[in-house]
Amino acid sequence: MTMEEFEGYAYVEGGVCAARGFVANGMNCGINPDKDKNDLGMVCSEAPCNTAAVYTQNKVQGAPITVTKEHLAKSGGVSRAVIVNSKNANTCNVDGIQVAEAVSELTAKELGIPEEQVIVASTGVIGERLAIEPFQAGIPSLAKGLSREGHAEAVKAIMTTDTVEKEVAVQFTLQGKTCTLGGMAKGSGMIHPNMATTLNFITSDVAISSELLQRALDDVVKVTYNCLTVDGDTSTNDMVSVMANGLAGNGEIAEEGMDYQTFRQALYIVMMNMTKMLAADGEGASKFLECTCLGAKDLDTAIAVAKSVVGSDLFKCAMFGEDANCGRVMCAIGYAPADFDIMKVNVMLESKAGSFTACENGMAVPFSEEEAARVLAEDEIYIQVDLQQGDVSAKAWGCDLTYDYVKINGDYRS
Amino acid sequence: MTMEEFEGYAYVEGGVCAARGFVANGMNCGINPDKDKNDLGMVCSEAPCNTAAVYTQNKVQGAPITVTKEHLAKSGGVSRAVIVNSKNANTCNVDGIQVAEAVSELTAKELGIPEEQVIVASTGVIGERLAIEPFQAGIPSLAKGLSREGHAEAVKAIMTTDTVEKEVAVQFTLQGKTCTLGGMAKGSGMIHPNMATTLNFITSDVAISSELLQRALDDVVKVTYNCLTVDGDTSTNDMVSVMANGLAGNGEIAEEGMDYQTFRQALYIVMMNMTKMLAADGEGASKFLECTCLGAKDLDTAIAVAKSVVGSDLFKCAMFGEDANCGRVMCAIGYAPADFDIMKVNVMLESKAGSFTACENGMAVPFSEEEAARVLAEDEIYIQVDLQQGDVSAKAWGCDLTYDYVKINGDYRS
Repeated sequence: MTMEEFEGYAYVEGGVCAARGFVANGMNCGINPDKDKNDLGMVCSEAPCNTAAVYTQNKVQGAPITVTKEHLAKSGGVSRAVIVNSKNANTCNVDGIQVAEAVSELTAKELGIPEEQVIVASTGVIGERLAIEPFQAGIPSLAKGLSREGHAEAVKAIMTTDTVEKEVAVQFTLQGKTCTLGGMAKGSGMIHPNMATTLNFITSDVAISSELLQRALDDVVKVTYNCLTVDGDTSTNDMVSVMANGLAGNGEIAEEGMDYQTFRQALYIVMMNMTKMLAADGEGASKFLECTCLGAKDLDTAIAVAKSVVGSDLFKCAMFGEDANCGRVMCAIGYAPADFDIMKVNVMLESKAGSFTACENGMAVPFSEEEAARVLAEDEIYIQVDLQQGDVSAKAWGCDLTYDYVKINGDYRS
Repeated sequence: MTMEEFEGYAYVEGGVCAARGFVANGMNCGINPDKDKNDLGMVCSEAPCNTAAVYTQNKVQGAPITVTKEHLAKSGGVSRAVIVNSKNANTCNVDGIQVAEAVSELTAKELGIPEEQVIVASTGVIGERLAIEPFQAGIPSLAKGLSREGHAEAVKAIMTTDTVEKEVAVQFTLQGKTCTLGGMAKGSGMIHPNMATTLNFITSDVAISSELLQRALDDVVKVTYNCLTVDGDTSTNDMVSVMANGLAGNGEIAEEGMDYQTFRQALYIVMMNMTKMLAADGEGASKFLECTCLGAKDLDTAIAVAKSVVGSDLFKCAMFGEDANCGRVMCAIGYAPADFDIMKVNVMLESKAGSFTACENGMAVPFSEEEAARVLAEDEIYIQVDLQQGDVSAKAWGCDLTYDYVKINGDYRS
């Protein structure tokens, strides 16, 4: 995955620990019987953080989601730490809330912080009881081992069917101060474009009010994670949190001026890159798909069309088969929930190997099958849909649908 | 697939020719290079038929859809014949309308009927030009060969990735007269629950007004084809038409009394059975899935929940893998677009081999993995979701997601 460059922003290492004052750690505490795989992660800030979050819209909500919402309501949107486990979602369990609260309590006690400043999260199998014992055994040593380098262990702890770690961080300047924003994400299947769509923890040393932090997150999530689809399923445990501890030393951003724009762009760069990583690592994916919808009359139309294309099972299968079945693109554009004139639509498919036009003004146009095969043989396929009825554009990301997706999800619990 | 019995209705042979006065035929006219496969079908009534139809809601509409709508508008909802080809959808083609009109004209001329009484339909690849020559060559002999037995050839002509013919017909009594209603359907992939979802031609000898015929079709389609999902894709060429020629000799049904109810139930039995056949023959399907949602406060809620379960890729994969991952069911119920209390929901999975409860009051309950494996090893799996917050129920149908689905759609055009 190539990282697009943005003027004024430099990519840096360090993920969730790239920003000043953040430490992290990860370990296997025994939830995952495979001792080589981390199943418990922690992130901690040396100073309290203004915190924004978005959560899944599924009616079935993991117990950790409920507890985190309560915590942030009680603390007035201030947090200090994240505790997260994989392999078990702690969802649909009769004692789920008690377990999530006990995990928070252990974390708070070990770090010497108020319990309501703990963000707790879980990912994995739904409907299996989560024992507290592995947390009791693991959290003390997890806390002791917190370090700037610990991001590399923490990111491993949130992986489920993910095949690669997903971390991005950028540096930029605000009022002459060097600021950093970084994060880690997990997600591979059960990723749907109608909410947070993944577990994702973002940290920054910028000083920004809780209100503007939440506004920036809501804006950016709409054009990044919410434009990602791996399958049509909306998870029960999705959450994106952004913690900002203010240690960069800038004056607190409290209104929508230039500083806010600079910060929001940093958040966009990090979240957009993680969105692309999530798409490329979709369960069983062999190809990354990016659809850009141009020429829309408004953002909602552009997003709806772009998502519809990358969300179509039939188109995803065609891309897996490297089959230039352009009717699948037109069909998916046609059922996008938006209002536009289909008879103006142009479609182009593109990759490193070249490009070809598949459709003009709503009608199929002849193309060279040889050229199309060359384009579609690449790992990253870009679909450009030009509605030709406005000047707004949006992107959506996804991946192909493969035998391996079926295989992974035919036997997910084992 | 077992056919449920309904008092007062008897299943009969004959499909689209079961009703009095209908003849049909099918042939290979050269659109499909495989000469063993029929690609052109015709149905004809000896008397004019009141006709109702529903069409795809995709913005991209096959040229035959446009032409059929124009015909029925012009004829005042009266038709005499259906002409339908497979292998090419005649969609997104610059000359699509002219070709569909030429096909209708050839049919009308050969049968000696007005052109606007022809229903024209196509199914197959989108965006490839459809030549008129095979129709010119085929239609005369197709018309000459029309017969009561021809339904068996006609149904073959509409198959694409279908592996079995889909025909159902029933007999029943209205005012002492024996009446018949039957039909044929195609559909395997690109079947989505928000419209007609398939090509489907239904014929009857009942006398019924156009208005009530359309009302019955709209009612029944909502709880049959619109509750079917094989993938999330809404086709560009879907259509259900019902032709009623009145030759049974009953007095025309012109109001919503007992006779209307009797007719509508016949339509339901035929369409419900074809829906189940379509689900069982979903592309690559190894298992038939039926979800019944009980205890809903209204029909829309029950339909939304039942559809959400059978439409979940993750649940479909779990069923393919015979994995009792009941969290997938809860997750899919949770994101159904409806308003209900998730904490009251019970879930049970059932098959010929037995049943087990997976969830009570929104929480997972322990079950025997051995018993669950026995239940899920069967070919037909029934999921019962009891919302416990009303007395309305609905069913939705689908199939598992398999390697073969991916294979079929990775290379659909060849």
